[in-house]
Amino acid sequence: MDKDIATLTEVALFKNLKAEQIGRILDIMHKVTFPANEIIMREGDVGSTMYIIIEGTVEVAKSLVIDDSSDGTSDKNKVFTRLDCGEHAVFGELALLEARKRTASVRAVTDCVMYEMKRDDFLKVADDDYELGFRVMLNLARIVSARLRRADEDTVKLTTALSIMLHEA
Amino acid sequence: MDKDIATLTEVALFKNLKAEQIGRILDIMHKVTFPANEIIMREGDVGSTMYIIIEGTVEVAKSLVIDDSSDGTSDKNKVFTRLDCGEHAVFGELALLEARKRTASVRAVTDCVMYEMKRDDFLKVADDDYELGFRVMLNLARIVSARLRRADEDTVKLTTALSIMLHEA
Repeated sequence: MDKDIATLTEVALFKNLKAEQIGRILDIMHKVTFPANEIIMREGDVGSTMYIIIEGTVEVAKSLVIDDSSDGTSDKNKVFTRLDCGEHAVFGELALLEARKRTASVRAVTDCVMYEMKRDDFLKVADDDYELGFRVMLNLARIVSARLRRADEDTVKLTTALSIMLHEA
Repeated sequence: MDKDIATLTEVALFKNLKAEQIGRILDIMHKVTFPANEIIMREGDVGSTMYIIIEGTVEVAKSLVIDDSSDGTSDKNKVFTRLDCGEHAVFGELALLEARKRTASVRAVTDCVMYEMKRDDFLKVADDDYELGFRVMLNLARIVSARLRRADEDTVKLTTALSIMLHEA
């Protein structure tokens, strides 16, 4: 139990939480396992859970171009990133905010053990302990804001490349 | 005062706040005015304030390509959006999260009246009333997450366009 609390303390989403608040988060988490190669989530599906990797490695696949394969499962033109337990990686955390489509697919590369947390369980805990809710939401908003800045930078780079190509064409 | 509370109730950032919590937000807001043509914020400057438009119209300018003008003020290759008091538009709200560079420049098109809120004042109120802090942060995280999804869609469109051009080149 203490080891689990120590693990969660290192997760950016739970920064500045007190030990008893981490304990409350731990109470609503379920340990789940995925065998190697299992699909954990599919881009486009509506999700209500987030995950923290405890053991193993996953591959995150995100479409880079509009997918014209009939079933949307073509691996062409996707960007792949690997996440593993070393950094206690979190994924699916946007599902804590509301029911929305997953922005990437995630597949287990090795056998994986994860903590799973459901949005409704988190919102109940946040309603019982608004300080916990405030701190997690501040952390999450900062994480999403940093990602938005990177996405904006990507847009600027891509538009610059397109603009150069159009001038040269 | 009641009119001001009614105005703030319509702002997405303050959704689900009780009237007395809106009142607490109002207590830390300052009414500020900007004459037509004044620059309210500059892309790249570090900001600590957010704004809600009460009267007037502003123009938001965001660089679309890497700016090669010597002073970074070239209007070429920027995207311009107008915001006005009709929708009680908010801008600069990422500054509530942390000290980071502004992601766009904003100029008053007409004489403007705005509410200004400083990050430190907001964080003090949130520390006094975590329920208020939780609700504002949940709203802000949802707003930023929606913007991230749009930015991701833009990336997919731009990458698709680039990929088509590279195949045709």
